[in-house]
Amino acid sequence: MAKASGIVALLTDYGLQDPYVGILKGALLSANPAARLVDLTHEIPPQDIDEGRRVLAAAVPYFPDGSVFLAVVDPGVGGKRDILALETDRHRFIAPDNGLLDGIDGVRRCVRVVESRYFRRPVSATFHGRDILAPVAGLLAKGLDLRRLGPSVRWTAKPADSVRGEVVSVDRFGNLITDIPAASLPKHGLHITVGRRTLRTLSRTYSDARKGELLALVGSTGHLEISVNQGSASRVTRIKKGTPVRVRPS
Amino acid sequence: MAKASGIVALLTDYGLQDPYVGILKGALLSANPAARLVDLTHEIPPQDIDEGRRVLAAAVPYFPDGSVFLAVVDPGVGGKRDILALETDRHRFIAPDNGLLDGIDGVRRCVRVVESRYFRRPVSATFHGRDILAPVAGLLAKGLDLRRLGPSVRWTAKPADSVRGEVVSVDRFGNLITDIPAASLPKHGLHITVGRRTLRTLSRTYSDARKGELLALVGSTGHLEISVNQGSASRVTRIKKGTPVRVRPS
Amino acid sequence: MAKASGIVALLTDYGLQDPYVGILKGALLSANPAARLVDLTHEIPPQDIDEGRRVLAAAVPYFPDGSVFLAVVDPGVGGKRDILALETDRHRFIAPDNGLLDGIDGVRRCVRVVESRYFRRPVSATFHGRDILAPVAGLLAKGLDLRRLGPSVRWTAKPADSVRGEVVSVDRFGNLITDIPAASLPKHGLHITVGRRTLRTLSRTYSDARKGELLALVGSTGHLEISVNQGSASRVTRIKKGTPVRVRPS
Repeated sequence: MAKASGIVALLTDYGLQDPYVGILKGALLSANPAARLVDLTHEIPPQDIDEGRRVLAAAVPYFPDGSVFLAVVDPGVGGKRDILALETDRHRFIAPDNGLLDGIDGVRRCVRVVESRYFRRPVSATFHGRDILAPVAGLLAKGLDLRRLGPSVRWTAKPADSVRGEVVSVDRFGNLITDIPAASLPKHGLHITVGRRTLRTLSRTYSDARKGELLALVGSTGHLEISVNQGSASRVTRIKKGTPVRVRPS
Repeated sequence: MAKASGIVALLTDYGLQDPYVGILKGALLSANPAARLVDLTHEIPPQDIDEGRRVLAAAVPYFPDGSVFLAVVDPGVGGKRDILALETDRHRFIAPDNGLLDGIDGVRRCVRVVESRYFRRPVSATFHGRDILAPVAGLLAKGLDLRRLGPSVRWTAKPADSVRGEVVSVDRFGNLITDIPAASLPKHGLHITVGRRTLRTLSRTYSDARKGELLALVGSTGHLEISVNQGSASRVTRIKKGTPVRVRPS
Repeated sequence: MAKASGIVALLTDYGLQDPYVGILKGALLSANPAARLVDLTHEIPPQDIDEGRRVLAAAVPYFPDGSVFLAVVDPGVGGKRDILALETDRHRFIAPDNGLLDGIDGVRRCVRVVESRYFRRPVSATFHGRDILAPVAGLLAKGLDLRRLGPSVRWTAKPADSVRGEVVSVDRFGNLITDIPAASLPKHGLHITVGRRTLRTLSRTYSDARKGELLALVGSTGHLEISVNQGSASRVTRIKKGTPVRVRPS
């Protein structure tokens, strides 16, 4: 495991209207006043685990070795779900055990976080972000050994993506972002179907297409995207989140 | 007073569309380039002092000793209102004297901020955040003695909360958050009235109730909340901010 | 050029729903794990270069010497537009060459960023923020000499503002912000026309006017603003962004 960098990246569905983000940061800094907080986003739609997983997985590979990630989208708070800490060769993670970490590759160790000596006391029933996840993230950023947090559990990697997928989000520029990774695209020639539209070329850049024209390309997150050069694919096609996408060799 | 940690937590109603937050941060860092800025929120509704006070008071206790808080919700800017700096055993604060700091407990010292040698010059009539509050917050985070800022004034603590209260906010999950603190709830049995609804149990956690069921519990901020397990109490009850809440022993 | 402070201020139109901000920060910290990130805003309206330029130019003067600014509003990404790095006596900048930096005063050096040894490899066609701008900003914050990035190019300063202008934005308080700088206002007496309204006095502060009254003043950003004391000028006048404003001596 890489040496702790002191960086803790935060992703939550707390929004910025309420005091929760401030409380989370305070609790983390109380455990480790030297931690360097980096906001990924606090605007994950409430309780939308899928979106949280997608945004987290997209950002992680770009962070320096030794970074810690604290992710909280937690519909099950106060119930029986576990809290997990993971370690890869480069990074560490803490999050509720609800699929939020399923996009993380190369997991070397996974523990169930149970050692209450590292928690804020007393632990409330409704705000584990403050009482468990934040203090533990602060300590991980100081270099605490993951194995001190609780028993190792088996980590089940999710299956590889297929060439059937769907539009998983529409970004603010109107790009239709799919869950189909670049690696699973056919090497020579392809035929993309999304809603009623068909595309037969993979563009290298937005400006490969004429202004206003629909195009397919591998977007910033390494997944297939449907876009319009200098326009909004969402508005042009009226295709929405959830629309199936199919890619086959042509 | 605790030794300065270098952390400055920021709370404003500036929003993120305009340059004001950037300007505030720049002015603070110019006074103290080593300050470590932590955004609480810049999304307090414009000029909503009550909401600013509530969010600030909820976050403060979780921050490490030696943290400084800069809070700006300031409808009276350019008029005759004072600027105050406060000190507790653990933290320091600077804000307009308009009630924004009324939720802070354990105030040991309060000064009126008048010593213009610590201000950005010239002081504008419309942006005291940039010209007074930010530079002074930066200097407080360096350890400047509060007494250097101006004359001590008497701090009037607000009266204790009663068991009559109201819904003071609806968070993004639809929880109805009241201003009734846990400490003022009856010890044995209770009877809660909010709008037309009555509740007779205090739940320990959301999952104590069945899915979709209304419940009362002490929420993350230490106050009574009305919630729905895996749903939105706001949508289910149509109860809004400002609705009176009454708690009596049953 | 001032010694690097390690501070990197970020301004983008990425929004906070998507992973792009997190990815940008990760790529920057990978190039320079000690960089101290300061969010100006990520809420510039998508592809609105004018608004990005205005917000950036308003914030820059308040930042300490040695700060680096990374600005990304980039409709031309993947096309033929250049990436520029600028240096003033106090600050450094990196942004697409599309006008985003036109509000920066006192430019001493301007280079076209082409030295790919400083980039993240491979460079994608669609995310230069991640692959070029973020890593280079990180290195500039470490003190990298601007001249190492590519050939010097001539910097063309924009012409001075006139006393004809327009409402360039409406802030969240409803103030109508113009592009007319304080310096260009007549010294003795003035006559302001905006939409159908006429104003003949420049107020020093909001409270110079009666509650609800329309007033003109030099706002926080150093430009002429039309405001209403304790109200919304936007709502009172129904004047919108783009409305011409004319100021002449009275």
